Order: sequence, then C-alpha cells, then structure tokens
Amino acid sequence: VNKQVVTFGELMLRLEPPGFARLTQTNSLNMTFGGAEANVAVSLANYGNPCSYISKFPSNSLGTAAVNSLRQLGVDTGQVLWGGDRIGIYYTENGAAQRAPVVLYDRANSAIAQIKPGEINWSEIFHGKNWFHFTGITPALGEGPAAVTLEAVTTAKNMGLTVSCDFNYRSKLWSVEAAGPVMTELLNYVDVAIGIGEMEAEQILGFSVNDHGVGDCSSRFRALAETLLQKFKFSHVATTQRNGYSASDNGWSAMLYDGKDFYQSPEYNIHMVDRVGSGDAFCGSLLYALLQEYTPQKSIDFAAAASCLKHSIQGDYNHVTLAEVEALMAGDGSGRIRR
Amino acid sequence: VNKQVVTFGELMLRLEPPGFARLTQTNSLNMTFGGAEANVAVSLANYGNPCSYISKFPSNSLGTAAVNSLRQLGVDTGQVLWGGDRIGIYYTENGAAQRAPVVLYDRANSAIAQIKPGEINWSEIFHGKNWFHFTGITPALGEGPAAVTLEAVTTAKNMGLTVSCDFNYRSKLWSVEAAGPVMTELLNYVDVAIGIGEMEAEQILGFSVNDHGVGDCSSRFRALAETLLQKFKFSHVATTQRNGYSASDNGWSAMLYDGKDFYQSPEYNIHMVDRVGSGDAFCGSLLYALLQEYTPQKSIDFAAAASCLKHSIQGDYNHVTLAEVEALMAGDGSGRIRR
Amino acid sequence: VNKQVVTFGELMLRLEPPGFARLTQTNSLNMTFGGAEANVAVSLANYGNPCSYISKFPSNSLGTAAVNSLRQLGVDTGQVLWGGDRIGIYYTENGAAQRAPVVLYDRANSAIAQIKPGEINWSEIFHGKNWFHFTGITPALGEGPAAVTLEAVTTAKNMGLTVSCDFNYRSKLWSVEAAGPVMTELLNYVDVAIGIGEMEAEQILGFSVNDHGVGDCSSRFRALAETLLQKFKFSHVATTQRNGYSASDNGWSAMLYDGKDFYQSPEYNIHMVDRVGSGDAFCGSLLYALLQEYTPQKSIDFAAAASCLKHSIQGDYNHVTLAEVEALMAGDGSGRIRR
Amino acid sequence: VNKQVVTFGELMLRLEPPGFARLTQTNSLNMTFGGAEANVAVSLANYGNPCSYISKFPSNSLGTAAVNSLRQLGVDTGQVLWGGDRIGIYYTENGAAQRAPVVLYDRANSAIAQIKPGEINWSEIFHGKNWFHFTGITPALGEGPAAVTLEAVTTAKNMGLTVSCDFNYRSKLWSVEAAGPVMTELLNYVDVAIGIGEMEAEQILGFSVNDHGVGDCSSRFRALAETLLQKFKFSHVATTQRNGYSASDNGWSAMLYDGKDFYQSPEYNIHMVDRVGSGDAFCGSLLYALLQEYTPQKSIDFAAAASCLKHSIQGDYNHVTLAEVEALMAGDGSGRIRR
Amino acid sequence: VNKQVVTFGELMLRLEPPGFARLTQTNSLNMTFGGAEANVAVSLANYGNPCSYISKFPSNSLGTAAVNSLRQLGVDTGQVLWGGDRIGIYYTENGAAQRAPVVLYDRANSAIAQIKPGEINWSEIFHGKNWFHFTGITPALGEGPAAVTLEAVTTAKNMGLTVSCDFNYRSKLWSVEAAGPVMTELLNYVDVAIGIGEMEAEQILGFSVNDHGVGDCSSRFRALAETLLQKFKFSHVATTQRNGYSASDNGWSAMLYDGKDFYQSPEYNIHMVDRVGSGDAFCGSLLYALLQEYTPQKSIDFAAAASCLKHSIQGDYNHVTLAEVEALMAGDGSGRIRR
Amino acid sequence: VNKQVVTFGELMLRLEPPGFARLTQTNSLNMTFGGAEANVAVSLANYGNPCSYISKFPSNSLGTAAVNSLRQLGVDTGQVLWGGDRIGIYYTENGAAQRAPVVLYDRANSAIAQIKPGEINWSEIFHGKNWFHFTGITPALGEGPAAVTLEAVTTAKNMGLTVSCDFNYRSKLWSVEAAGPVMTELLNYVDVAIGIGEMEAEQILGFSVNDHGVGDCSSRFRALAETLLQKFKFSHVATTQRNGYSASDNGWSAMLYDGKDFYQSPEYNIHMVDRVGSGDAFCGSLLYALLQEYTPQKSIDFAAAASCLKHSIQGDYNHVTLAEVEALMAGDGSGRIRR
Repeated sequence: VNKQVVTFGELMLRLEPPGFARLTQTNSLNMTFGGAEANVAVSLANYGNPCSYISKFPSNSLGTAAVNSLRQLGVDTGQVLWGGDRIGIYYTENGAAQRAPVVLYDRANSAIAQIKPGEINWSEIFHGKNWFHFTGITPALGEGPAAVTLEAVTTAKNMGLTVSCDFNYRSKLWSVEAAGPVMTELLNYVDVAIGIGEMEAEQILGFSVNDHGVGDCSSRFRALAETLLQKFKFSHVATTQRNGYSASDNGWSAMLYDGKDFYQSPEYNIHMVDRVGSGDAFCGSLLYALLQEYTPQKSIDFAAAASCLKHSIQGDYNHVTLAEVEALMAGDGSGRIRR
Repeated sequence: VNKQVVTFGELMLRLEPPGFARLTQTNSLNMTFGGAEANVAVSLANYGNPCSYISKFPSNSLGTAAVNSLRQLGVDTGQVLWGGDRIGIYYTENGAAQRAPVVLYDRANSAIAQIKPGEINWSEIFHGKNWFHFTGITPALGEGPAAVTLEAVTTAKNMGLTVSCDFNYRSKLWSVEAAGPVMTELLNYVDVAIGIGEMEAEQILGFSVNDHGVGDCSSRFRALAETLLQKFKFSHVATTQRNGYSASDNGWSAMLYDGKDFYQSPEYNIHMVDRVGSGDAFCGSLLYALLQEYTPQKSIDFAAAASCLKHSIQGDYNHVTLAEVEALMAGDGSGRIRR
Repeated sequence: VNKQVVTFGELMLRLEPPGFARLTQTNSLNMTFGGAEANVAVSLANYGNPCSYISKFPSNSLGTAAVNSLRQLGVDTGQVLWGGDRIGIYYTENGAAQRAPVVLYDRANSAIAQIKPGEINWSEIFHGKNWFHFTGITPALGEGPAAVTLEAVTTAKNMGLTVSCDFNYRSKLWSVEAAGPVMTELLNYVDVAIGIGEMEAEQILGFSVNDHGVGDCSSRFRALAETLLQKFKFSHVATTQRNGYSASDNGWSAMLYDGKDFYQSPEYNIHMVDRVGSGDAFCGSLLYALLQEYTPQKSIDFAAAASCLKHSIQGDYNHVTLAEVEALMAGDGSGRIRR
Repeated sequence: VNKQVVTFGELMLRLEPPGFARLTQTNSLNMTFGGAEANVAVSLANYGNPCSYISKFPSNSLGTAAVNSLRQLGVDTGQVLWGGDRIGIYYTENGAAQRAPVVLYDRANSAIAQIKPGEINWSEIFHGKNWFHFTGITPALGEGPAAVTLEAVTTAKNMGLTVSCDFNYRSKLWSVEAAGPVMTELLNYVDVAIGIGEMEAEQILGFSVNDHGVGDCSSRFRALAETLLQKFKFSHVATTQRNGYSASDNGWSAMLYDGKDFYQSPEYNIHMVDRVGSGDAFCGSLLYALLQEYTPQKSIDFAAAASCLKHSIQGDYNHVTLAEVEALMAGDGSGRIRR
Repeated sequence: VNKQVVTFGELMLRLEPPGFARLTQTNSLNMTFGGAEANVAVSLANYGNPCSYISKFPSNSLGTAAVNSLRQLGVDTGQVLWGGDRIGIYYTENGAAQRAPVVLYDRANSAIAQIKPGEINWSEIFHGKNWFHFTGITPALGEGPAAVTLEAVTTAKNMGLTVSCDFNYRSKLWSVEAAGPVMTELLNYVDVAIGIGEMEAEQILGFSVNDHGVGDCSSRFRALAETLLQKFKFSHVATTQRNGYSASDNGWSAMLYDGKDFYQSPEYNIHMVDRVGSGDAFCGSLLYALLQEYTPQKSIDFAAAASCLKHSIQGDYNHVTLAEVEALMAGDGSGRIRR
Repeated sequence: VNKQVVTFGELMLRLEPPGFARLTQTNSLNMTFGGAEANVAVSLANYGNPCSYISKFPSNSLGTAAVNSLRQLGVDTGQVLWGGDRIGIYYTENGAAQRAPVVLYDRANSAIAQIKPGEINWSEIFHGKNWFHFTGITPALGEGPAAVTLEAVTTAKNMGLTVSCDFNYRSKLWSVEAAGPVMTELLNYVDVAIGIGEMEAEQILGFSVNDHGVGDCSSRFRALAETLLQKFKFSHVATTQRNGYSASDNGWSAMLYDGKDFYQSPEYNIHMVDRVGSGDAFCGSLLYALLQEYTPQKSIDFAAAASCLKHSIQGDYNHVTLAEVEALMAGDGSGRIRR
C-alpha cells in the first residue's frame, strides 16, 4: 500500500514569456504555478502516491487558481490555510545556447511568508500520515515560516513520520550566516537529506570537508556523505549532478548513499525544454522509490531517469508517466514514437 | 506651440486573461502596463503634446519593460528614478453582460509606494514645463508618496505651472477619513479639478451639498461645482457621467464648468471593448484641449468623444487618433470603414 | 451543513475554434471538457457544496485530462470507473448575430456509452450522500447507460436520497418513441423535475396538455406543472425560458412550481459570451438553493441570476462566484468594475 | 446543372491584428487573403457552383499561399498567371462602437496591377463557361488591368457569356474623372449591374438623377435603376443598403430591379463580427441565385440573407452554408444552437 | 510529362498540443490533418505531379475541412466519397530529449473504416491514370477496407497501372497472424515495395531470412530484398533507416534495390521538428523520382534528402520545395539563409 | 562619457510564421521590425550609448509602429522624415536542421528607397555627434539613397565624425558591377570597415587578393586586411566567421585588425534561436567597445560574445544585457539559471 506524504512550503505564480522571448519583448505571459515542495507533491500524486500539500493562500482568484492547479493533479489541498495579502510570483525567461535562463522573484510578503507559529495544526495534519518533506527555501522566507517549519519537523518526528529535506540554499533569501543555525537545527530531525553539496556543508553547516574539490564527483560525494553522517542521523543522503554544457544541453546524473553503500545512476545527455523543477522531480521520485521500497540502486536510477525526463516537460510540475520512467531505466532513450 | 506637461504616479504591470476568461480559467495572461497618470501622459503624447512622466521603477527587466511601454508611445521618461523592490501589479478580468469586470490589485511595496520626500528634484523637473497633473491615487499609496505629491504641487505652483488633479478616490487604498485632510491640502494648489462627485465632496472633503441626488445630473453637477468653488480656487471643474446598462453597454457623457458657464457633451451609447483607462483618456484629452485653447464647449466635446472612443481600445493606453476624435465630434459614429 | 450530491453522466472533450471562426477556418481548437451532469457538479462545487461525479473514462491521457478538469474545480472524482475505448467529443462553433452556434457530436462508442449494468456499485457510492442528479441524456446513450441510470435512481430512492432530473431530450440520440417509456419509468423516482416543456410532455410522456400554446408562458408553465403532478410525485418542477433575439442577444428567465405556488424570476437581457452549459448552471444553482433551503422565490431567483451570469463565461463550467450571483439578485447588473 | 462562372481581379494578402487591437498595439497579425472578385468566386464555390478565378501572382510562397487559399475552398485556379514582383497587401483593424474599422492598402505594383494586354488568353478561359464577373476595382489598378478588363468583357460578350459587374468605386485608386469613361465603356457589356448608387451615377457616369436624395431609399433606387436603363442594357440592377448605427451594429437590406419590377429584402439588424467582404458575399450569392433561376424575390432574399450572415464570419471569404441561408430566409434568426 | 497517381486510404484529424506540452497540460490543440496515403499524395502534388486521393469522409464540416486541406495543396479530391459517421482522429505529443513522441489513436468507426466492397468505382477512377499507391494501414482498418484495397490493386493491375505499397504494419490495428494472408495477397500485385523489414518478412510474410540481424544494415537489406524477390515480382524494394539517438536527434538514410543493384543514400543527422509523416515523404518523393525516371541512385538520394528535410516541417504534410531538396542533394545542409 | 552615434538606413516590417511553420502553412505572422542600421542603433541604445536613427517612414500606422519599436528601446528617432508611399517588408521563415531559413523581400518603393538628395539636413543631424554608421544596403536601395549616403559620409567626415561601414553586399539589390564604384567611393570616407570578405574585395572592389582561399581563415583575414589598407585609410577592419553545420547549429567567431595587430575571439558553438541580426549585433557591439575604448582584444571579444548571445534572441533587435555579455566573455556559457 501507498504511504501518505505531507509537504509544506510556498507555491508561487509562475509567469513566463512564450518561446525564447525576454520579458522586455513580450505582450503575453504563460501562467502556471510552481514551488519546490508543491512540485514534490505533484510528482508523488502523479505516480499515484497520496500526498497532501500545506501552505497559506490569499483568498482571491489567484489563490484559488494556485490551489486548483494542485487539485487538478491529485494533490490533497483540503488543509491549506486561506488568508494573507498576496501570492508570491516568479518570472522566468527560457535560456538558449550560451544565454542562461533567468528567474526573477517577486515573493516578499506572500501569504505563506507572513505565517505565524501556531497557525498550522500539525498534529491534526500528520494524523495517519507517514512522511513529511520540506526544503531549505521555506525557513528562508522569514522567522515565521522558519518557526513553523521547526514546529512541523518536531511534531513529525514525535509522531513517527519519516522526514526528508531538500537543502535548496537560496542566497537571495538569506545569508549563509543566517542559514547556518536554522538549517542545522532542522537537519537534526531529518532522515533523508537531499542536495547538500560541499559549498553548503562548509559555508553553511560549518563542516571541514576533506580534500574539497579533489577527486571525481562520486568519491567526493561519498566523502561528503560520510562527513555529514558524523553529525546527523540521516538514513539516506542523495544529490544530483548537473553538467552545464550550455543552456540548451546538459549532462545529468544522481548519487545515493544509504549509510553503507554508494549508488550512482547513469549520466544522461539532455536537450533542454525546461529545467526548472527538475531537482524537485528528483526529490519526489526518490521519495516515491523509497516509499515503494525499491533497492537503493533502483531508487537512484528511478529518480535520475524521472528527473532526466522532467527536463523535457514545460512548467514546474512533473507530467512524466511511470511507464516512461521505466522505459528509460530499461535503456530506451531513443525517442521512438509511442503509438 | 505645444506646452510641456509633467505627470507623476504609479505605472503598474497589467495582467489579463485573454477574451472573457477568468483568472481561474486561463493559462496565459496578456501583459501591458497602465496607471492613471501614465495613461494621461500617453494621451497627450499620442496627440503630439510633449509630456514627461515621473515615477520610480525597480532596476529589473519589468521596470525596463514598463518604461519602454511609455517611451514607445513618445512619453519622455528620461527623469524617472530607478530603485526599490518591485513593480505594482493589477490583474483584470473582462466583464460581459451582467458580469462586471474585475480588478485585483497587488501593488503594495512597489518602488513608487516606497518613495521618500526629497528623492525627486521637482525644481529641475519642472524647469521649462507648463503643466503638472496628478491624481488622488498617488497620495493614497502611503505617507511617502503623499508627501512627495505635496512637494510637487507646491513646487509647481511656485514655478507658475498649471496644476490639474483627477480625484480618483480608491477605497481599497485609504479610508475617507484618511483621504480628507490630504486631498483637501493638495486641492488648494489645483487649477483644474476632475472627477469630484457628490460622494467625494460630502464624505471626503466635508462639504454639505444641497439637494444631494435631487435633479438631473447636469443641474446637480453645476450645484456641486459652485459649492466646490466656494472653498477652492479651481479654474475648471470637469467630470464624466457613466450609465452602466451592463458590462457590455454603457452610456457616456461629460460636463465642464469654467467658473462662469456650464458645458455638456453629447451622450454616447458605447458597446464595450475595454473601459479601464477611459477616465484617464478623458483627463488627458481635456488637458490637450485646454492646452490647445479650445473653447470650453469644444474642450468638453473633444474630451468626451476621445474617451468614448477609448472604450473601443484594448489596454489602459489611448491609441485613438486626432482624426478619429474629430470625426466623432463632427457626428460620425457610424463605423463606416476608413479605407 | 452542506449536503452531499452525486451526479452521473457523460463528460466530453469540447473542441472549439477560437473567436468566431468556423471549423473550416481554423488551425487550432480550444480544448475544454463539458457534459450536462458534470456541469451541474461543477456548479455545486463552485459554490462550496460537496459533489461527486460518476462516469467511466478511457485509461489514456484524455481520460485523465477530463477527470483533472473536474478535480481542479473541487469535484470528487475518486469513484469514477476507468476503461473503455474512447472519450466522447463535441465540437462547437460560436454563433453571432443571425448565425446560430453549432454543436457537432462525435460521442458514439464512448467509455460511458458502453457501460453495462452492474459495473457501478451504487450502494457504495450513495453511502452518506443526500442527493442524486441525472439528466435525460444519459439513458439516451444506449441500453447499458439507460439500465445503469435505472439502477441508480432505484438505489437512490431506496437509500433515501432526493433525486433530481433535467429532462434534456436530445433528438439526435433517440426518438420520442424510444424516449417515452424509458423516461416515464425514470421519472417515477424523481423529486425535482427540470426542463419538461409542452413538447416533451405531449410527444414523449404522452400527456394531453390543455390549451397547448395558449396564454402567456407563466400560466402555461403552471398548467403544465399541474398536469405533470397528476402522474408524477415531483416536489418541485422548474424550467427556464429563453427568448432568442439572435445568437448575440437573448432574453432569459426561470420559473418554479413547488406543488403549491408558482414563482418566477426577473427576465434578463443577455449579451452572449457562451450559452452552452447555461441550463446546467441553472440546474446546479437550483440544487444549491434547495440544499441551502432558500425560500422558493429566492431559489428561482438565485438559479436564474446564476445561469444568466453563466452566459458571460467561456466553456461549459460555471465560474461565477456566490458574491456575483448575490449582487445580481440584489439588482446590480450595471457592470461596474469590481476593484 | 450548374453553370460555370469566371471571375477576374486582384487577390490581396490581408493582415489584421487579433481582436480589437490597432496596428500600433500588436506583435502578431492574422494572415488571410481577400479581394472583391475572389470573394465572389469563393461564395459560388462555397454553394457548389463551379467557379474559376483569373489573376496573376508572384512566383513565391506568398503567391502560392494566396492561390492555395482559393483551391482550399474549391475555386478553380488552374489558369492563373505566375510572375510579377509582389502580391498586394491590405491591413485591417477591427472597429468597435464609435471607432470605425480601418483598411490600409499597400497594393501598388502588385503582379496583377502590372499585367499587360494580351497576357491572358480569354478565349481559352471562357471556353465552356457561362458567366463572367468583374468589379470596378480591377480597371482602377492601372492602364494594363483596365485594358485587360475590356478584353475580358468584349470577349465574354462575343462568346455569349452573361456579364456582371460590381461597381465598387475606390477613390484611393482613381478619381471620378478617370473612372467615368472607363467604367462607362465597360458597362456597355454588362448584364447584371450591382452597387451603382446615386453618387456613382451622377459623379462618375454623368447621369442627372431626378430628385436625388428625395424619397425613401426604395423609391430612389427604382428611379435610379430606371435612369440607368435608359443608357445601359442591364437585365438586372441590384444594390445593398447599409445603415451604420455604429461599428458594432448595422442595418442591412438589399434591392433588385429586373427591368420590370422592384424587389426588396427584409432588413436585418446585425451585431458585427467582420463586415469586410459582405458586399462581395451579396454579389456571389445573387449570382448563385440567378444561376439557380430563383424568382427575383427569392434571389434578392437569398443574397440579402447570405450577406447578412457573412457579417458574422471572420475574413473576406464566405463560409456560410446553404442550409444556414435558407433557415434565415425562412425567418429563423434566433441563434438557437444547431446540435 | 507527369504521370497521374492515385492514392487511397484514411485521412485523420490530427490534434496536438502546442510546443512540448502534454495532453494533460494544454487548453488548446493545433488542428491539422494527416494520413499515410494522403501524405504521399501531398508530396507528389507539392512537386507538381498530379495526384488524386480516394477516401470516404463524413458529410460535416470536419469532413469538409479534411478535404479542403488536400485541395489547398493541389491534390485532386473530386472523387472522394461522402457519408459515414465520423472522421478518425489521432492525437500527438511532441517528444524531446529522452521523452518519446506519443501518438494516441481514436480512429475506430471512421467513414473509411466502414466502407464496403463495391462502393468505389475503381475502373472509373483509374481511367487515364498511371500509378496506384496504398499502404498496409488501409487493409488493417477492417474487412471492408481490406476488400476494397484488393479491388483496387486487382483493377489497377488489370488496367496497367504501376502499383506501390508502403508496408506500414500497425500492431494496434491487427495481429501479425491477421496481417499475413491479407498482405501476402495484396503484395502479389505490387511493383514497388517500401518498408518491409526483417520483422515484417519473418513474422508476417513467413519468410526465413538468412542471418537475421547479422551484418551491417546495407548487406542485410540486400539479403532481405533478394529473399522477397524469390516470391514477389517487385521491380523495386526500398526502405529507410532511422537511428534514434533521442527524440531530439536522429540519424536518417535510405536504401533501394532495383532487382539488380543496391543503392544507398548518405546518412543525415537531423535535429527534429516533427518526425510524423517523414516515411510518407520518403514514399512520395521516391514515387516522384521514379515517375521522373531519375537514375536509381538519384532516386534514392532524392527521396532520402526530401524526407530528411520533412523532419524540419510541422505537420504530416510535406512542404519542402524541389529547390530545397536539390540543394541538399548537392551537399548544402549548412542552413545558410536563403535571401 | 558616452559618445553620440548616428545610423541611417531602412527599417522594415518583419513578418514571420510562428515556430517552424512555412508561409504556406500559417494563418498568423509575428510582427516585428528590423533593418541592419536600426539593429546597430538598438544594440548601442541597449548598452546605454546614445544613438540616433535617421530614415524616412510613411505617415501611417505602420510607419508609426516602426518608429515606436525604436523609441521603445531608447533609440532617438526625433529626426526621422515622414512621407513616401510604404514601408518595406521582409518575410522570414525559421530554418531547422538541414532546412535553411528563408528571407523574402518586398521592399521596393519604400519611403526611404524613394528619398532624394537634399531631403536630409545632415549638418543639423551631425551637430554634437561623434560617430556615423551606415551599411552597404542603403546605397543599394537606389540612386537616391546612394546619393544621400554619399552626402552623409562627406558631411560626417567634414564635421569630424568617425565613420563606420558594414559592407553587407546584397545580390538581390544590385550587381557587383553596380556596387563597385559606389562602394569604393563611400569607403574612402570610412574609418571602421566591417564585413569585407575575399569575395567582396575581389569581385566588387577589384582587388587581387593573394592566395585567395589558401591558409586558415585568420591568416587569410590578415592578408585581406593588409590588402585593403593599401587603398583605404581604415583604422579598423573587422569581420565575423560563421561555420554553418546546419540551420540549428553554427560555429561563430570574429576577427579584428587595427592596422598593426590581429585579434581573434574564441569560437562559440551555437544552438540557434534566430540568426537574423547577429551580424548587426556584432557591429553595434564593436562600435560600443570602440567608443568605450576597450583594448582591441577586449573589443573583439565583446563583439563576438554579444553577437553569439544574440543568436539566442528572437527578432532583429539585440536584447542581451551587458552583464550577460561580460559573463560569457568571462567564460560562463554553461546556461546556469540566473535567479
């Protein structure tokens, strides 16, 4: 049977010029929604695993449209809070060739950024649930969200849920100095840690990583993971590896450490449609694999293949089918027509 | 020769679903810009009268796109300020039949709302200029904008500019109690007062209007104008009159009082394309007429015909030609093809 | 507290050229979904009343997209069946002036049309529910759907649910001769009967209506309702009245008989955006009113105002807010901007 | 059996901003094709009457696209000439309310405007054909087109074809002085004369029309028709009557004189989609009616109803079905959905 | 002189989300038409070779639009049949990177699938024609289409036409067991056989292919062709070779055997726009080359270059010019601007 | 401080099917504006360097829209001339893979092509300006434009401006024989010469280039530059080098000779969005670099990186930011998201 997941964070309005146009060239914007934790929820619901999303939305038609975008894909939004002033926005421009994609945030003072401790009844929300997922973006939104995230992880742990975290450090939201103690405290409650690289370990979490930058990326990942486990009680450490040849072409692979062994996925060469949300598709797919109790190797292969395919999907949300992921895991990346 | 006009206020990003879709139904938004004072500037530039626009924009591609939208139509933006956090946004939904159009604001904390006294060098800006126009929206944005508006009108008056104001009370931005003293002080410097109705006079400015609601609209407008002139030194008082039969069909006319006589335009029956910005087109066209030193009757007829035609134009900005206004003033509303 | 409603029928893919283009003029089609019973479910969910939708969908991405369109708007689709060959389609062309809108069906052999008795576990579905709504379209889809509809109404009645029916005779699906016995049997289980006109009563149900076509429409509706109650045990009889001045402009009103008194709504003159689904918005809104235990007059006024407003909405689904309906009921059809 | 029609003239690229946008507001243009004579050909082919179109097109992809647009709708283009420098263009802006639609021509130096006498083998083209239709636009394109038109009408007459002409005076192409002798000579060969009004008769053809402007439009049309028949040998004289209430709403009717009696259609009140090409739809539909040997009353009713419906169609080309015309002739302009 | 070709099959409505969107992500669909045999007809007409298309279409606006799409490009549709219930549909999703394109069929019960023997007068159709082309899709549509295809090939052979067949086995339409005897019988009448690979030869046609899968693709193709010629009287055997590196990038080449010698085209590396219909562009271009009596090497080079270029064209239909094909055959694939 | 630049030439309406569609496949066209000299002006204004554009535009809404497109991006258009018959047009089709992009001109008889000597007051225009830029396209438009260009360069030289020229030979506008003497005379006044290759030097300018085609492209460029300096007094000679692997992928680099040394940029491998205008972006960026007094190596690196990035921008106009150019010059072409 599936296990019930809860995610918590900010869902933003995503506005984007069509094609390769810049914001100074367009008179229309594609309108979708996205946010790291909601994207994870969509990935799980997309594969058929029940998932609830917790956030706070303004009581207007944009808040409704945001929630509708999740309901449409099967995410349970029955417990979101309503209130606050506005929905956060992010604008994107598609990159191409040597021109990088651009993300422009207008998220200050959003409903969720203004949340206060005590507003969310975590005990009620976690009742009957198995897993809680958050990211490092939510505590960066402000003191309120940071405190509420801490409420969430402590309650989750007390109630026996597995807790996962995608580190996702965002320098525009807070400094490494501000992030350090907050993230360190939160990570004490985390079982599955995703996306902690050498920079994050050293500059934010204060580790001294041996031979930083020496060796190939897999041996360095293993060293880093072992270092992290000296302090934290992670059951799993995972990350992705992107090689940016250009905005149009990337290499992509992933690695997992389960405290005993190290597992690495194949590397995929990807011709880009939309890279935003690919890391979240990786998280959501890894959670799905772990909930399905796949072997570690199959888990990291599943998450890597799924997130590889996500690069071919427009928008934050993962619309890749299980069958497509399994076909790619089985080696078929030939792009033959599926009639 | 043309006379140089300066306007000052907030230019917002305007986002709107195509056709008659609601925000909960769309996956794209038409992207334009609009704001009461900028719309007035565009009207003037559109007719060939030089006009400068003063505001503050964030230093990002949305701020650039906003300024570009004015430069494109010939408005001088060479003295705008750059800085602040964000550009204000408003979302609109087209109305139809009995369903009213909707405007949803997300304008708090915009760059211009955060402006502080002293940031704008009004003496330099007004050098060589003849006319300053503002609206009641700008002082409603906050204490900073209110103070800067007061700087503007006092400097303008000192430097001999004509000052015009479109009252534009917005209940979502401030209460009648808050608006009262601020607007009263500003109106002391105003020559041309537009858009003060019985509600505004009584509830905000504290007048006692004789026989409120009694008589036809023209006699009531005359009574109101005479009352206002007991306190303020307006050279002209003008207003428009909208009869809302439905969201699709409106009646539209305008009235002018020049301290001596009362002038009324024909009433137009309008099948609606976009009513947002029509009042601003009226203001801009009235300013143009007064700058051209049209007779009072021709002035109000010009402004009424131009703003009637604006209802057939998509977006905030007035794209109606002088020739089209003149044809309608001459009585041709038949819609014959202009080949 | 809200009462739980269940609807059952066919949800079709709706494909439509943009604007006023014909199918022979376009190279793109707007893609939405619609169906009489699903439209009723959306109306209820839109107002916040829980509603489940029961149907059968093919296990492909079009079936998923159809179900998603309902989930998005809060309709519970957790008990739909999956299987069958295809989703039904209908093509529409917008009408204008003297040119009528066109609906072209391609719905034969859809998954729901191929359903067989016993496939749906009505006892389980109706557990804890209060109301069942169906239309005369579903039994017209074939013997299987007719039999399943009969299963539904008999089970519903046995379990104490209120049953409502929108008659919706479709001559392209079956003859009056075929429809007669099927509809007569189904109507025996109906409490709230909607959309039975003189034609349906005489030609399908075999009544002899006194003075058919004599008198004004309200006295004729009363006579018809009284006639129907001689045979059926309807608690309520309701209908709408459309006056087609052209494809662009219609008159619209509604009438209700509660077995004792006759209630009539105001008539609205409507400038058209999309008339498809307006009758369903009437049904859904009437059900909402009855579930809210509004007075009969308020009920018919609510349903008439809501369905009037639906004519301004693109697509089958009702996106009109409660506040908008209440404003129109209170007399405001002026189309003033809601800022 | 159908009778074969030949039309001759200029087909232009038609470029138009979407919706109600102006050319200064858009970044895309809808691309269709249109021209008075081609529009007539499309009307005939649309009803199933064989029709050939003769013109000259540049040998590039725009010329091909233009010809394809006619082939698509069943017009025979097998005898068009290829060569010359460019295709003529016209830009349109949709009008609304008091704002008139705009047509902006860029047609000078088109392939057909540069045609020379002798380039077209009219004897071969008219072989086996029954009817030739031209308009007053073609001879206005230049001396070459005027001479080729004269070749066409003299050859047509010699070979026994019926000849029809839509007068279509365009002041931007030539003066009344220039048009006078050319049109007078051409009209000597015409059987069915369409669109000659009092202005054309007096100022271009040099008639003295009794009581110009006196009486209702039908008595004036009769007087005009009788005057024309004193000089020309027209078998039929026909015209349309447009009452421009605004760009959004028009009155529309038509009149026919067959040398003996006068026939008038009903007047239609039309809510506008696109009026360009409506006169051509009238011509094409009148030709169809005469070829079908309808009675005069039915002929003018058919042509009036068809061209009324054309106002609801986007683009120059008539996409109205015979069944729709017949339904409107039978009195159904209610806009009921055709399911 | 050109030689007249006839093709016969099913033309479907093709519906496709814009860009890289999935069917679950879109609210509009691009609308075109396509079908293997119609695509071949379009290729021939596109190069200027007369071609007739035979099929059956429903008498509604979709049937008309389908036929119009062929008329537009110069295909003769004067002898298509009208009737039946519906037009077949196929939905596509664009692939990208490792995500394969998807084709979803909804073609059962189409007008052509319901055709019965005797409905088409092949003798009349083939009168004056030189070549008949069909594919293995048509007999797979059902017993009626299979029987009508057999009528076609026997009549064609009797009347001296060359017959070509693109094998096109579709496993969703019939099993290899069902296909075997039908295709074997039809191939007895075929001169030019395209698209028979080792799988088709062994599993459907029952050949034992020596050393299946051994050797390079050209030596294996020669072995296969020689094997086929032991049983069938093919004058030419041809096939294409696709190497699927991903959905975005493919290798593409082609081979021809004329009973004596083996000819191979260059291989092209293709960055994909739309691969659907490329095989049909190969067929149509090969037929054109053979009708032009190009040498075998030039024929296979022409067909390979043309179908390579088709991958850069949106939609099923080939819009590549002869000049473009010849430029690529001459070695210019540099993509220099053609000004 | 920035130095004021003047450019002079033709700005055309650019019409382009969306995506990869051909002109025979589309029913809408993207509408932008472009022209070699205007594109240079936009590049300069885009980087913040003041630039005036001189041309002549028809007094209609297309002329206005063209000028607006430049004003929008900060180009000074205050001195353009108004008059003439039409605006020139060019149609483009996007290329892909082996299919080359297409440019189809319809520019004859444009307002600027009809300009006569004496119409432009160059002394007034050049007052206070530092640099004049033209291209070889303008003198090719006709005798009038050629004479006016000569007026410009002689006046510019007399007034002490630096003069730059992009050679831009267009064979569709004039022959090498016609271009020879005109370009030779103009080049006598040029300081910075761009885009003269071996073909131009030999066939148009009549040089004998040693070892034409021998050696690598950099040694050949040096040889060519030295040869040119034997006759002309160029301070700088620059060119770009494009390697066309396909329409989708190009190599791109640039070279500069300052009379003493030779400088070469890195080569970029570019995945294409839109290559039209890239050469103009190179010119504009090189002018900017020289005006900023960058070193020669930095100048050519800046111009090469900027024009590389322009390939990722839709439309003629350069929308690349200084920060993006500098990041690429610093080696970051990885396409990492700029958040």
